[in-house]
Amino acid sequence: MIKVGIAGASGYTGVELVKLISNHPETKLCAITSNSYKGSSLADIFPSMRGFGRGLGRRFENLICEDLDIQSLSGKIDLMFLALPHKISMQHVPALLDHKIKVIDLSADYRFTNAAAYESAYQEHTSKHLLKESVYGLSEIYRDQIKESNLVGNPGCYPTSILLPLLPLLKEGLILPHGLISDSKSGVSGAGRSLSLSTHFCEANESFTAYKIGNHRHTPEINEILSIHSQQKVSITFVPHLLPLTRGMLSTIYAQATDNATEDKIRKTFHAYYGNEPFLRILDKNMYPAISHVRGTNCCDIGFHFDEKTKKIIIISAIDNLLKGAAGQAVQNMNILFGLDEQTGLNSFQGPL
Amino acid sequence: MIKVGIAGASGYTGVELVKLISNHPETKLCAITSNSYKGSSLADIFPSMRGFGRGLGRRFENLICEDLDIQSLSGKIDLMFLALPHKISMQHVPALLDHKIKVIDLSADYRFTNAAAYESAYQEHTSKHLLKESVYGLSEIYRDQIKESNLVGNPGCYPTSILLPLLPLLKEGLILPHGLISDSKSGVSGAGRSLSLSTHFCEANESFTAYKIGNHRHTPEINEILSIHSQQKVSITFVPHLLPLTRGMLSTIYAQATDNATEDKIRKTFHAYYGNEPFLRILDKNMYPAISHVRGTNCCDIGFHFDEKTKKIIIISAIDNLLKGAAGQAVQNMNILFGLDEQTGLNSFQGPL
Amino acid sequence: MIKVGIAGASGYTGVELVKLISNHPETKLCAITSNSYKGSSLADIFPSMRGFGRGLGRRFENLICEDLDIQSLSGKIDLMFLALPHKISMQHVPALLDHKIKVIDLSADYRFTNAAAYESAYQEHTSKHLLKESVYGLSEIYRDQIKESNLVGNPGCYPTSILLPLLPLLKEGLILPHGLISDSKSGVSGAGRSLSLSTHFCEANESFTAYKIGNHRHTPEINEILSIHSQQKVSITFVPHLLPLTRGMLSTIYAQATDNATEDKIRKTFHAYYGNEPFLRILDKNMYPAISHVRGTNCCDIGFHFDEKTKKIIIISAIDNLLKGAAGQAVQNMNILFGLDEQTGLNSFQGPL
Amino acid sequence: MIKVGIAGASGYTGVELVKLISNHPETKLCAITSNSYKGSSLADIFPSMRGFGRGLGRRFENLICEDLDIQSLSGKIDLMFLALPHKISMQHVPALLDHKIKVIDLSADYRFTNAAAYESAYQEHTSKHLLKESVYGLSEIYRDQIKESNLVGNPGCYPTSILLPLLPLLKEGLILPHGLISDSKSGVSGAGRSLSLSTHFCEANESFTAYKIGNHRHTPEINEILSIHSQQKVSITFVPHLLPLTRGMLSTIYAQATDNATEDKIRKTFHAYYGNEPFLRILDKNMYPAISHVRGTNCCDIGFHFDEKTKKIIIISAIDNLLKGAAGQAVQNMNILFGLDEQTGLNSFQGPL
Repeated sequence: MIKVGIAGASGYTGVELVKLISNHPETKLCAITSNSYKGSSLADIFPSMRGFGRGLGRRFENLICEDLDIQSLSGKIDLMFLALPHKISMQHVPALLDHKIKVIDLSADYRFTNAAAYESAYQEHTSKHLLKESVYGLSEIYRDQIKESNLVGNPGCYPTSILLPLLPLLKEGLILPHGLISDSKSGVSGAGRSLSLSTHFCEANESFTAYKIGNHRHTPEINEILSIHSQQKVSITFVPHLLPLTRGMLSTIYAQATDNATEDKIRKTFHAYYGNEPFLRILDKNMYPAISHVRGTNCCDIGFHFDEKTKKIIIISAIDNLLKGAAGQAVQNMNILFGLDEQTGLNSFQGPL
Repeated sequence: MIKVGIAGASGYTGVELVKLISNHPETKLCAITSNSYKGSSLADIFPSMRGFGRGLGRRFENLICEDLDIQSLSGKIDLMFLALPHKISMQHVPALLDHKIKVIDLSADYRFTNAAAYESAYQEHTSKHLLKESVYGLSEIYRDQIKESNLVGNPGCYPTSILLPLLPLLKEGLILPHGLISDSKSGVSGAGRSLSLSTHFCEANESFTAYKIGNHRHTPEINEILSIHSQQKVSITFVPHLLPLTRGMLSTIYAQATDNATEDKIRKTFHAYYGNEPFLRILDKNMYPAISHVRGTNCCDIGFHFDEKTKKIIIISAIDNLLKGAAGQAVQNMNILFGLDEQTGLNSFQGPL
Repeated sequence: MIKVGIAGASGYTGVELVKLISNHPETKLCAITSNSYKGSSLADIFPSMRGFGRGLGRRFENLICEDLDIQSLSGKIDLMFLALPHKISMQHVPALLDHKIKVIDLSADYRFTNAAAYESAYQEHTSKHLLKESVYGLSEIYRDQIKESNLVGNPGCYPTSILLPLLPLLKEGLILPHGLISDSKSGVSGAGRSLSLSTHFCEANESFTAYKIGNHRHTPEINEILSIHSQQKVSITFVPHLLPLTRGMLSTIYAQATDNATEDKIRKTFHAYYGNEPFLRILDKNMYPAISHVRGTNCCDIGFHFDEKTKKIIIISAIDNLLKGAAGQAVQNMNILFGLDEQTGLNSFQGPL
Repeated sequence: MIKVGIAGASGYTGVELVKLISNHPETKLCAITSNSYKGSSLADIFPSMRGFGRGLGRRFENLICEDLDIQSLSGKIDLMFLALPHKISMQHVPALLDHKIKVIDLSADYRFTNAAAYESAYQEHTSKHLLKESVYGLSEIYRDQIKESNLVGNPGCYPTSILLPLLPLLKEGLILPHGLISDSKSGVSGAGRSLSLSTHFCEANESFTAYKIGNHRHTPEINEILSIHSQQKVSITFVPHLLPLTRGMLSTIYAQATDNATEDKIRKTFHAYYGNEPFLRILDKNMYPAISHVRGTNCCDIGFHFDEKTKKIIIISAIDNLLKGAAGQAVQNMNILFGLDEQTGLNSFQGPL
C-alpha cells in the first residue's frame, strides 16, 4: 500500500484527488491539509462525502484537514500530492524531498526545466536546482522518466489537451512547428473554488468569453515542451475561453501539415503512439470529441480533419479538466512512479450522463 | 417627465431599474448611486450597456455612479428608487421625504405596518412613524393607496408570487386561512451580485436545494398581509429553494378550499380580480405556468388544480423575480404614483427564448 | 459470478445499469437488448463508452444490442434487468420466469399488488397472477421479501424519494396519514432519451414548471405503499416539477405530526430505521439535502424541519433519479437477491462536482 | 406604416421577428404563416405571448398562423420576411416579387451571387436570375444596395459574426486574405426548434463539441463575400461548435496581418468603418466580447489582440445569433429598405442578465 498525503484537499482538484485515492485499491490516504478549512473534516466541507470513505478504513467524517507540517509527515507517507497554488508549492517541496517523500506537484512550480521561462510567467523560483530533477508529468510522453523520478511537475490542463495531440505529429515531422494555434475552452471548475465575479453563477451562466489572450501562463509551458520535442523554438498562439459548464475542456487546434503528410500517415501516427494507451482514444474519420464523452474519465479523446489540398489539419481534443487535466493524470503518474498498472483506480466507466 | 434617481444601481435589481427607466417614455434618469462602484460609469460596470442609453439623452458611458447625497438631489428629482439592503434604506428615507422626494423602497424597511413584526425579522426600526404612511406596493391590491402615497414599500419577490394568487381566494372566503403552504423556487439572481459559495457557478449549477426553512425573512411579510386581508392571524408554511437558472421564480401553493368553493367559483374569482389586469394572466384548466413564459416580462401567471372531492387546491404562480418580483413592480408603482398608464414602459413583449 | 442481462440498454436507465454492472465485481454482463439500436454496439450509441468495459472481459465496442429473445437467453443468464416501458415489460416477464431467469423490472408493471390500481393508472394487466409473487423493490423496507423473490418491481424515482422518508414516521405513528403533500422536482434525465419539445434544450434550459398535476402515474404507486403501511387508505397530494439540470431529484414533503411527536422522537426514529443503512443519510438539524450532494451516488439524503408549536413537519429528501431512483436501487436489489453485501458495486465515492 | 408578413413564425427565428415587429413603431403585422401550426394562434404555440401584442392592435391570441398563400397576400402587405428552410424559400420568392411584395429572406437561397457556389452547398437553384437582383443583407456593408433592392438575402449567423470584423481589415489591406481561421461557437437556438438528439437537453447540457468540420454550409457563403472584397479567391478555415446555452454566438478569428499593419492602424480602421454604427461596438485594448454582453441586443461586439512581433491578429466577435445573426439584422434591413432610422425598434437596452 502506498501511503499518500494530499495538500490542498479542500479545493476542487484536491477533493478530486481524495475521491480517486479513496477508490484506489493500492493506496492509503494518511493525511490531508487545507489552509482555509483547518480542523474541519472533509464531510463538513463537502456534504456529498458524508458516509463515504469506508474504502479508506475510516469515513470522511473522520478525515480532518491539518496544517501542512512536513516534520510530522516524515516516515508516515511515501507520496505527497500538492494541489496548492504556484509559489506555495515550492515552499514545501525541498523539505518533502529531504524527508524522502516523493512529490507530485499539481502547481506550475516544477513543470519547467528552464527557470527563466518559469520566472517570466510566474515569479522568482526559490529552488531552481530541483528543475533538473523534476519530470514533466505528461504520462504518455514522459513515462520512462517519471518512473525514475521523485518529483513530478503535473501538467496544466490546457497544456495536456494541446500537447497530447501535437507531440506525435511534431516528432514525426508531419506538421510544421510554427503557426500553431490552439483555441481552447474550459469549464468553470478550472477556475477553482475561490469566489470571483467571473465565476459567479449569474455572470458565467448563459455566457461564453475568451480571456487572458496573449498572456495566459500556460502558454510558456506549452511552448517549452513543444520546443524541446521539435528541437526549435516554438511559439503557439493560445486563446483560452470559459464555457458555461462545470467540468471539461476541449481544444481545437490548427496546424499546417508538411508536404509529405497524408491523412493516412497522420492517423497511423496517432495509432502508433496511442493505440495501446488506455486513456487515449483516437476517433474515426468524421467523428469528433465532445466534453460529455470524457467527463468523469481520465481519457483524452482526439479527432482530426485533414484537408489534402491545403494540407491544413484541424485537431480536436477533449479531456475532463479535473481528471486527465489534473487529478486523474496525477494518479496515473503515481501509478507509474510506484510500478502499478497505470489504470489502477482510474478505469471505472462513468456513463454518458 | 418624471425626474428619477436610482440608489444601488450596480446591483442586479438596480441595473434592472436602470434598464426599465431608460426604456420608459415618461421619465428622465437624473442620478444613480452605488456604494461599491462610486465614480464608475454604468458601461464600465456592465459592458452590455456600452453604447446604449441614448433614450436617456446620454449614453451609459456618461452615467456615473455617485454617492447618495440627498442635499444635492433636492429639487432635482421627483422620485428615488432605493435598491439598497434593508437597514441602509431607512437611513435615507426620512431625509428624502423631507426634501419632497417620493420614495419607492425595494428593501424590506417599509413593507410592514407592524414595527414589531419588522423588528423580530430584521433589526430595530429607526423611523417607525413612517410605517403608518408607507404603502405596501403590491400594485394590483394596493393601487388606490399607492396613488396617494409618498413612500412605497415594494414587496419581496417571494411575497409577490404568493400573495397575488392567495389574496382573492382568501378575501372571497374560498380558501381557509390556516394550513397554507408555499413551496417556492427562485433563480440565482435573487441572491444578488455579491459573491458567496452557494452562488458560485460550480456549486449552484446542476444542483437544487431548499434553504432557510422556517426562518426566511419573507415569511413575516407574507403573514402580515395575509392576516390583514383574512382578518385573523395567518401563519403560512413557506419553503424557499434555489434553482439552477438566472431569472425567474415559481411558487407551488397548497390550500384547503372552503365547503362552498367550486372550481368554477375559483376561476371566476381570479377573473373578477385579475381579468382586466394587464400583468396577470389566469391560465386555462390543465395549463400551468413556467418560468420561461414570464421571464423578461412584468407578468404573474397563475394556474390551479382543484380536487372537487377533497376540496384541495394547488395553485402555481410564476414571475420574473427581477421584474414583477422587484424592478418591474417598482416601475408599475411609479406609474401609479404619477398617474400614468400602468403599462407604460413595461409592455414590450419579450419572446419565448 | 451472477450472469446478467439488461433489456433496454440504450436508454438512460439502461446504460446506467450497464455502467454499474460493468463496475460490479460479482457479475458478468452476458446480454443487452435494445429495440432502437439492434445490431449496434454500446460504444456506437454512447461514444463515452469507447475503450471501456475491460472489467467485463470485453470492450463495449464488442457488446452488441440484440433482440430480446428469451429462448436464446435460457440457461445463459441468472437475472434480467428490464429497463423497458411499462406494458412492454409484462410481455416478457412470464416467459423469463418460466425459464428460471430472475427479473428486476424497472417499469411499473410489477410494482402494484392491487391490479385494479395498476389498471386505473396504466392499462390492462396481462399477468395479474404475478402481482402476488412480485415484491416492491424499495430495498431498505422490503429487504426480507426481496431476498426470497424471483420478481422485483423496482420502485419509481418519485416514490422512492417520498416513501423512504415517510414510511418510518407513518409506521411509528409520528405523522398523520392524511393531508400529506409532496412537492417533487426532477432533473430532465427522468424523462428519458426519447425526443420531446419539453426536453428540447432551448425549452427546458432556464425554465422550471410543474406538470401532470393530479394525474401523474406515480401517485397511485405511492398511495398503495403508504396505505399498506398505515393500514388505511392514504391519498397523497403529489406535484412533480421539471428542473433544468440533468440528474437528480428532490422532494419537499409536508406532513402533520401527531400530538405525541417531538423533534427528538422523529430524529430517533429516522436513526433507528436508517442509522445503519449505507445508502441513507439523515442530516443534522438545520442541514438540508441538495441534489449535488447525492448526484452519482445511490444515497438518499433526508433532512427535516419540525415546528414544535404547530406540529408541522417539513421533510426534504434527495436522490439521484438514475441511481437510487432507478438503476442503483435495482443493483442494490440484485445484491439482496443474490446474498451479496448490499453495497457491492455501489460504494465508490463520487466527488462534489 | 409598413405592412408586414412573416412566414415561418412558429420557429425560433420567426417568433423573434414577430417580437421585434410587434415592438416596432412603424410596422403593422398583417399575416403570419406556419407549416406545423396552421390554424393555431401564436399564444397557443408560445404561452409566453399570451396577453401581449396590443401594440399590434390585437393580441397574439388573435394572430393565427395561416398557409403561405401569396394570392391572398397581394396588395395587403409591403414586405414579407421568410424564416423558412432553404429550398422552401425559393418556391415562394418569385411569386412574392411578382406581386410587388418586397422580400427579406432569412434562408440561404438568395445570399449568393454565384449560383454554382450555392448549388454545390445546397441544391439546384430554381430562380437563378434573381441572384443578380438580390442583395446580401450584411447591413453595415451593403447598406446602399439594400436601399435600392426588393430582395434581401439575410446573412447566416456565423457569416455575420465573421464578416463584420474581417471585411474592414481585408479591404484596407491590413490582413492577408489567405490562412484565415474562424473558430466559432453557437448557442443551441441556432439549431432551431426541430427535435434532434444533439439538442436534447441531457445531450447538450454540460457538453461542448465541434460539428460539420470542413463541410458546414456557411463556409461557401463566407468565402464568397471575402473573395469579392479581397478581389481574390479566399478560402477560410471555419469550425463551428455547439455551446450549452440558448442564445449567443462568439467567433475567435485568427489572421496574419500585413507588414504595414500596426495595432493603431487596425484600431483606427475599425473605428473608421464602425465608429458611427449604432450596432457595432469596438472594444478597448485588453477587453474582449462576451455572449452575455450582446444577448438580447442587435449589437456585434469586436475586440482584438495584436502581436506586433509576429503580426498575428486574434479577433473576437460576439452577437446574439437570433438578433444580429438573424431577426435583428432582418429588421435593420427592413429599416434600410423603407428609409427609416436603422435603430427603429432595435434600440431598447436589454440589461446584463
